[in-house]
Amino acid sequence: MIVAGATGFAGALAAHLLWRHPGFELVGVTGRSERGRRLDDLYPRYRVPLTIEELDVDRLDALDAAVVAYPHAAAAPTVAALRERGTRVVDLSADFRLGSLSTYEHWYGAHPRPDLLAEAVYGLTELHREAIAGAALVANPGCYPTASLLGLAPLARAGLIADVVIDAKQGISGAGRAFDETTHLSMAGENILPYKVAAHRHTPEIEEQLRWLDPARPDIKVQFQAHLVPLDQGELASCYVTPSRAVAAGELRELFADAYAEEPFVEVLDAPPGVREVRETNFCRVYAAADEHTGKVLVFSAIDNLWKGTSSQAVQNLNLMFGLDETEGLS
Amino acid sequence: MIVAGATGFAGALAAHLLWRHPGFELVGVTGRSERGRRLDDLYPRYRVPLTIEELDVDRLDALDAAVVAYPHAAAAPTVAALRERGTRVVDLSADFRLGSLSTYEHWYGAHPRPDLLAEAVYGLTELHREAIAGAALVANPGCYPTASLLGLAPLARAGLIADVVIDAKQGISGAGRAFDETTHLSMAGENILPYKVAAHRHTPEIEEQLRWLDPARPDIKVQFQAHLVPLDQGELASCYVTPSRAVAAGELRELFADAYAEEPFVEVLDAPPGVREVRETNFCRVYAAADEHTGKVLVFSAIDNLWKGTSSQAVQNLNLMFGLDETEGLS
Amino acid sequence: MIVAGATGFAGALAAHLLWRHPGFELVGVTGRSERGRRLDDLYPRYRVPLTIEELDVDRLDALDAAVVAYPHAAAAPTVAALRERGTRVVDLSADFRLGSLSTYEHWYGAHPRPDLLAEAVYGLTELHREAIAGAALVANPGCYPTASLLGLAPLARAGLIADVVIDAKQGISGAGRAFDETTHLSMAGENILPYKVAAHRHTPEIEEQLRWLDPARPDIKVQFQAHLVPLDQGELASCYVTPSRAVAAGELRELFADAYAEEPFVEVLDAPPGVREVRETNFCRVYAAADEHTGKVLVFSAIDNLWKGTSSQAVQNLNLMFGLDETEGLS
Amino acid sequence: MIVAGATGFAGALAAHLLWRHPGFELVGVTGRSERGRRLDDLYPRYRVPLTIEELDVDRLDALDAAVVAYPHAAAAPTVAALRERGTRVVDLSADFRLGSLSTYEHWYGAHPRPDLLAEAVYGLTELHREAIAGAALVANPGCYPTASLLGLAPLARAGLIADVVIDAKQGISGAGRAFDETTHLSMAGENILPYKVAAHRHTPEIEEQLRWLDPARPDIKVQFQAHLVPLDQGELASCYVTPSRAVAAGELRELFADAYAEEPFVEVLDAPPGVREVRETNFCRVYAAADEHTGKVLVFSAIDNLWKGTSSQAVQNLNLMFGLDETEGLS
Repeated sequence: MIVAGATGFAGALAAHLLWRHPGFELVGVTGRSERGRRLDDLYPRYRVPLTIEELDVDRLDALDAAVVAYPHAAAAPTVAALRERGTRVVDLSADFRLGSLSTYEHWYGAHPRPDLLAEAVYGLTELHREAIAGAALVANPGCYPTASLLGLAPLARAGLIADVVIDAKQGISGAGRAFDETTHLSMAGENILPYKVAAHRHTPEIEEQLRWLDPARPDIKVQFQAHLVPLDQGELASCYVTPSRAVAAGELRELFADAYAEEPFVEVLDAPPGVREVRETNFCRVYAAADEHTGKVLVFSAIDNLWKGTSSQAVQNLNLMFGLDETEGLS
Repeated sequence: MIVAGATGFAGALAAHLLWRHPGFELVGVTGRSERGRRLDDLYPRYRVPLTIEELDVDRLDALDAAVVAYPHAAAAPTVAALRERGTRVVDLSADFRLGSLSTYEHWYGAHPRPDLLAEAVYGLTELHREAIAGAALVANPGCYPTASLLGLAPLARAGLIADVVIDAKQGISGAGRAFDETTHLSMAGENILPYKVAAHRHTPEIEEQLRWLDPARPDIKVQFQAHLVPLDQGELASCYVTPSRAVAAGELRELFADAYAEEPFVEVLDAPPGVREVRETNFCRVYAAADEHTGKVLVFSAIDNLWKGTSSQAVQNLNLMFGLDETEGLS
Repeated sequence: MIVAGATGFAGALAAHLLWRHPGFELVGVTGRSERGRRLDDLYPRYRVPLTIEELDVDRLDALDAAVVAYPHAAAAPTVAALRERGTRVVDLSADFRLGSLSTYEHWYGAHPRPDLLAEAVYGLTELHREAIAGAALVANPGCYPTASLLGLAPLARAGLIADVVIDAKQGISGAGRAFDETTHLSMAGENILPYKVAAHRHTPEIEEQLRWLDPARPDIKVQFQAHLVPLDQGELASCYVTPSRAVAAGELRELFADAYAEEPFVEVLDAPPGVREVRETNFCRVYAAADEHTGKVLVFSAIDNLWKGTSSQAVQNLNLMFGLDETEGLS
Repeated sequence: MIVAGATGFAGALAAHLLWRHPGFELVGVTGRSERGRRLDDLYPRYRVPLTIEELDVDRLDALDAAVVAYPHAAAAPTVAALRERGTRVVDLSADFRLGSLSTYEHWYGAHPRPDLLAEAVYGLTELHREAIAGAALVANPGCYPTASLLGLAPLARAGLIADVVIDAKQGISGAGRAFDETTHLSMAGENILPYKVAAHRHTPEIEEQLRWLDPARPDIKVQFQAHLVPLDQGELASCYVTPSRAVAAGELRELFADAYAEEPFVEVLDAPPGVREVRETNFCRVYAAADEHTGKVLVFSAIDNLWKGTSSQAVQNLNLMFGLDETEGLS
């Protein structure tokens, strides 16, 4: 196992989780910068005593698995090279999340390796568990789609979503290791900032999955809006659903309880979740409520954007891919 | 001029603004607790060197004006006593914000002084400027309605709001001087918390004003949801409007530009506002966008919840009530 | 194993660590408040599914061990009752930290059970490892003494401390679950606050240990000062030592390297530590430097005040007391 | 009046204060980057509607005054060019703070314009008020020396400082508009970080002033240590003084009360100051205590590092230089 791109927040956390994982052996971490530096020097808390190297795919023939944590477009060629050597890959980028090539190209430009789209499985574990177990290439979801879809899936499966607004809030770690005005404590602190208004790349990802969950609504459109708030790790998706028919509180409760009764990492609450409750865990906490005044259904879904939203979900997927207990190394 | 209830965050800030105001003389601050303590001991930054006293209305005959910063239900009797002596009042509580007594009683219980409802003017300055100038009793709006309505008013006046979801986020000062789990830094820090789900008392206040702005929609219902985020002062209302007809970007821009062209404290932006930009000011920054993908109209409205959301708007109203320049003491 | 006093920050974290510990079985959590409530309701992140009960010592005959997390003076009688039943105790309070009864009484008033002082062992693991292994009652150190003494011990043992100033900074969790002006985010945020000036109860605890480390200086006096800074968990002790003789950089480096070469939880750095590097770990990171300009020796010692400063050090001690590997359940 | 270097935190705040100042006319803001951009676009809160230009000294003949906010070494040539045209300058850099050229060169390298050192006056207003009033070139102090010296001056003048340790803590704005690991919210948040151990450039500045205050101690050496803590604006200097003779609490109180009785911006407290109390003000709050246990004298001095520590002190100095009331535009 290696982590390619371990210098960013997501890759570094993946390396941390895999290093201490009883079922995997992390043998290398690579990066496009910081080569020669120890990862535990760059991220002391993660305590991974490996040196960041250049990725040399030719030397990696016997590699069972890899996590690729490169930016979109940069990820696809590396994923392809690894796949050609038979390595099973969890890719954290957006490159293989969308089933539709045209949708990808609309949002991201030309796709470096469209030939691999067909073999990629969307890695939202709770929605695609069986396909993930047999997959050679898992496209790990974005953090916003993870929170949003875990909140909406029970309603979508029941055909109940006529319209939906998703207002998402995320901590500054969501901006990654970028050094700019969005991450400087004296600019991001004491701030609440909406960003990418009416143009967030996670919208098509959510829509594609909602259509898969509710094939009767191939035209569903999602109003998705992201905001940065001044904390480190944590993400809340507040979902406002106009239901296709009236939904009573009891039915709603049952729907969510049934949907997640067997899930080890989704907790259905009877009060709104705070993101602090899931910090540094792979848990998603969900709360659904029917608003009698407006008739709308409200769902609040809380995750740690770096954990369940990214790196620990990658480990959850790797557990499935290699026949381990899904919770191994995650509790 | 006095501030009754100066020990809370809102009253203390009102005292601060009035103490340094060139057009008013603050002669007293009262409180239900902390009597005998200096206000600048309780709030050093505000530097008001007055001692907190018991409110003794009988001693106040010659008082021109008062700001009342008591909790709802506790405010009304004090407001009534002050009004009986001819004092003009800006009340920061919810007691006189709603025109409908039955709506008040649905949300708050019995009203202590329903007889005064008729003379109260809703103190959202930009919507009711003329009435405020002549008012003896101004009901200062809640902070959430202030941000929400300044964002929605241009659309409502144009009859464009068919449906609206308001997702509001606020700093911890919005919880006031309460000492509990919602304000403890080790609990509120690193958290994002929805609260009062499907039951926020500010909903009827927003709805009543929207109906006044668009009398053709007497049945409009607002989906309003509040969240606490880990900062001190600042509030953002993200409004998702389903318009009654298609609205193009150009029309939207013109609508907002026209609505606020003459307003000294409302700034229409061409990018999303961060709440940090309005911290410790009376400004509201508004940004509206049409989402071509969904057809919805998005409006983001940022204020400082303690300033324009509460205490500096009270001063703005007092300026109008006493014939001063509306911006006096606020820039 | 039980945790008595699991509703506070320290007790709750101890319960969390023991619940997931492979070598101990946590069978109960008690509290003086919140009885009947689940601990994972009060502290969701800690995920301990036990119900908070009243402590009934008579029912606990077969109990091997307990962590007591009560305030000082309240702890001693409970510790005594547990000891009478043969239960081995780690006490998190100050009741048994000081060897000298008169010093205790000077700072805390009458001691409820001075008869137990003789059997108590001071639980700074790295200083008293052998005694702890055989102890029936371990007095877990305060967080400030833990950071300070791990920073100063190599110098004290070498007889090098002629005078010392300790300037300590701590996150708000150090104030515990207290709801007041020191913990309210709108008061503690954006603040740096010195407290207990020239009167901190941790001073005699540090002095007693320094005298034990350097018996040649029975009169050493420590200038200790604590500050609250706006973060959750983390503590830094900055120690300014006037050495008894000139100390060169090389000697200093060697002194610290030797002192901690075998320690699993103390890391000697060659650059100043940030507290973030040890957050939610049992590690202490230490950096020592000689200032050529002044001739002083500077030591910086970083811990997580709730972990190594309190609850994870309690587990480290329990591991020793029960013959487990010292790092069990802590990495 | 212009501000040269208005794109950084210090220059931008100086521009803000001068723009709203009733006694000065700010006619231009210059920058080495961001030219053509409006300053109120870069710093919305400061609301200065001027466009950032290139500094063209030749066009500035009739300019009475300038604030120069360039980094050290870059500042001196600009200061010189302005002085040649008769413009009176407050320089925020370190270039003219030290009276000794050799000390400057030891810490900063070659001095670009040593010929101007003689005419520069050290701009700690409370210490050099008269000289500042007549100065053509004022070297504004660093923020750390400002806090430290205001805390220590009464003791130094009385000849009481035999030895001193200064442990200073500062918010992240002290790092300026730098985008790096020290300012990223996900790295600086939840951290306490000592920096520039045993090598801080502010040490000689403090020592030079202490020698001026107490000429009997020409060899005094200061142990100064800086720390970054996770807030925006605010700075505390905790000073631990070994007095040259025993100092009783009463004498200490009197010494500080007398020293600052007439000062409009220094407040002597009888309890430790929190930096929040002085946020966004020109005030310095000081508290001194005698520790009976150790015999040391403790002084805590709190300022806003960007205000009294930098930009508002520059305005205070400009007020003096131009014969205005010292508090003009600052309260």
